[in-house]
Amino acid sequence: MPVKNRQPEPRYIFIFVFLIIMFVLVQASQAAEKHKDEHMFLDSHLDTPLLVDFSALDITKRYSWQNDYVQVDLPRMKEGGLDGGFWVIYTPQGPLTQDGYARALKEARQRNAVIDKMVRDAPDDFALAVQGQDARAIIAQGKRVVYKSIENAYPLGEDLSLLDEFYAAGVRMVGLVHTRNNQFSDSSTDSGGQKWGGLSPLGKELIARANALGMVVDLSHAHDDALEQAMALSKTPIILSHSGASQLYTHPRNVPDRLLKQLAETGGVIQINSLSGYLRKLNVDRRRLPELIKIYSEYRAPDSANGEVGAKHIAYTAKRRALDAKYPPQYADISDVLDHFFYTLELMGPEHVGFGMDWDGGGGVANLQDVSDLPKVLAAFRNRGLSEADIAKISGENLIRLLAVAEKAARD
Amino acid sequence: MPVKNRQPEPRYIFIFVFLIIMFVLVQASQAAEKHKDEHMFLDSHLDTPLLVDFSALDITKRYSWQNDYVQVDLPRMKEGGLDGGFWVIYTPQGPLTQDGYARALKEARQRNAVIDKMVRDAPDDFALAVQGQDARAIIAQGKRVVYKSIENAYPLGEDLSLLDEFYAAGVRMVGLVHTRNNQFSDSSTDSGGQKWGGLSPLGKELIARANALGMVVDLSHAHDDALEQAMALSKTPIILSHSGASQLYTHPRNVPDRLLKQLAETGGVIQINSLSGYLRKLNVDRRRLPELIKIYSEYRAPDSANGEVGAKHIAYTAKRRALDAKYPPQYADISDVLDHFFYTLELMGPEHVGFGMDWDGGGGVANLQDVSDLPKVLAAFRNRGLSEADIAKISGENLIRLLAVAEKAARD
Repeated sequence: MPVKNRQPEPRYIFIFVFLIIMFVLVQASQAAEKHKDEHMFLDSHLDTPLLVDFSALDITKRYSWQNDYVQVDLPRMKEGGLDGGFWVIYTPQGPLTQDGYARALKEARQRNAVIDKMVRDAPDDFALAVQGQDARAIIAQGKRVVYKSIENAYPLGEDLSLLDEFYAAGVRMVGLVHTRNNQFSDSSTDSGGQKWGGLSPLGKELIARANALGMVVDLSHAHDDALEQAMALSKTPIILSHSGASQLYTHPRNVPDRLLKQLAETGGVIQINSLSGYLRKLNVDRRRLPELIKIYSEYRAPDSANGEVGAKHIAYTAKRRALDAKYPPQYADISDVLDHFFYTLELMGPEHVGFGMDWDGGGGVANLQDVSDLPKVLAAFRNRGLSEADIAKISGENLIRLLAVAEKAARD
Repeated sequence: MPVKNRQPEPRYIFIFVFLIIMFVLVQASQAAEKHKDEHMFLDSHLDTPLLVDFSALDITKRYSWQNDYVQVDLPRMKEGGLDGGFWVIYTPQGPLTQDGYARALKEARQRNAVIDKMVRDAPDDFALAVQGQDARAIIAQGKRVVYKSIENAYPLGEDLSLLDEFYAAGVRMVGLVHTRNNQFSDSSTDSGGQKWGGLSPLGKELIARANALGMVVDLSHAHDDALEQAMALSKTPIILSHSGASQLYTHPRNVPDRLLKQLAETGGVIQINSLSGYLRKLNVDRRRLPELIKIYSEYRAPDSANGEVGAKHIAYTAKRRALDAKYPPQYADISDVLDHFFYTLELMGPEHVGFGMDWDGGGGVANLQDVSDLPKVLAAFRNRGLSEADIAKISGENLIRLLAVAEKAARD
């Protein structure tokens, strides 16, 4: 009898267990809800250093796309929940000559210095990151994450030891090529066709050197043949830092299913871009793009400065407005960006897709014109039923995974 | 002993009660969290019927501000969580003559018919609302809420029985005046100064008639004197359907603290507008606004049509782009809109502030350029620490409260 006395009645056990289960479930659901705003959110292609360089924009101040054609700054990063990402050292393609290399190198070093200055000037807001694990630590301090990457390895010339110099400066991702063939690789968009049949011998050496250093190799802008060869050659997974799916829109900048599947199989990641002209066919006067590129290049050429950066940026926006009047722009829509996300997620899985919107480098569509609009994309992910775990991968974990793998392979 | 046997041990009772309390607390917190996206969200000034009328835009399709200068459509209402609001029958001010009245009346009737057609064409997406309580029922059906309002009572001429006609057509809010004095009221922005010293005798009759019918009286655009007289005269609270605070920016379209306090004391509501030029001082060439108004009026004049609405809208956007190139626009920022919200909330309390962004009627600032951007405002409210209960008032409850009060007063 005393033994029986110590046991609670069955109905109490039932209620007890039921309540514990409910409690745990509700707590878990709450935790997931709370987690929503806490995903690490990184973009692999922020071209903003170009604006900081040529117009001396103060990135801690608020600009706008509507007034200034500027898409990234600290206030809007906070509003959009963007924690940072890879800030780009971009150099346009010039002649494959010693003189061309020398001038490009000077510009790339200058761009690198501008990124350093940006962080130095706002040490409470930004911090340089070099290792995969740095991002979380920086975010925990309430700061924005500044990884560095190179878009277009052209400034390295034929001296691969320069890659070590940029590595030492903190660069952890290297994109081989831009819109025209260079000494390393065929471009996907060179009007003259292929020069190397994919990678050049020097390009293969560059990948080996990047592997040895522990840098992520970026094949956005490269010809499909170069991507295929790079996937076979690289010891660590390839990134497409800002690209799309050619199944949705046949454009050389987009990547066919066959290679996207291979990218996933080799552990790589495609970071979806938001450049209107790559997302879908648009009804734009074809004279617009060359003029827009001309405006960009006038803007960026140091000798076009009139001495006052504010006036220079105003002149640039004035030219863009005049162009808009002459040949009206047509932007793709946020729904097009979502199409590329959902298509690649379906094809490749949530471990192999991320964000590389090409902000301040040509990205931006209707209703997704700056980083403050990013929550709209996350909302669409949730409406589509993506799990919080998958969203966390897409919004940042995949990107730093690639960096961690590259680091580890170099160490071993 | 048998009695004692039926009682659970004290520690089980303790755990049991503790778990029930935790469960209830967590559930309540979850409910609050879930409630976030379920606030009724209404805007008191949607000028979109003008676009639907002149360009035959299909509101169920997706447009964009970036490509089309269109700020409201069904897909973006869904994305922004906007449930609907008051869709405006707007008539520009013309001469105070019988002929002028007759032409304006024709246009107002046409605009009313366009709103009806919009709802008739998409009965699964939109529903007409006339009573305060209709909004919730329509939202519960998964549809968008279409209340009707008049901006500028000019089309009524001197025949107040016409107000009954519009009431019968479903109109439940009447704005007395627009940018110039009319037969009912002084405008806040008539370059000729005041004509009536506030309300005209006919304007006072109009308010009495609106009270008798159960319509909400809207004093946006009216001179301060007219607002003050209307607050004293009207039997039910006054609305400012799209206005701002002159303490933040001295502009005749904004309202001084003294009158805003009086508005709150009399139970009224200011619905914050997002028209850049009213929010703060901008650095815009002053030749821009007259030209922009000219473009609008060319667009809206029926005889400027070339027969094909698509081409007409394209011509309108082309003119706007040309104007942007000639006299660059400068938009205020979402932070300016928030300033007007927070200032009036502090001054008047959460029962007396709401949304009246003037979408498709001149509203829209950098980072808040269409209804899909509205969640940014709610996020800022939450960051500021506003309670969900207060956000619910601001996002819709205040607006339908005024309508319910007007209905009840008319019934009694």
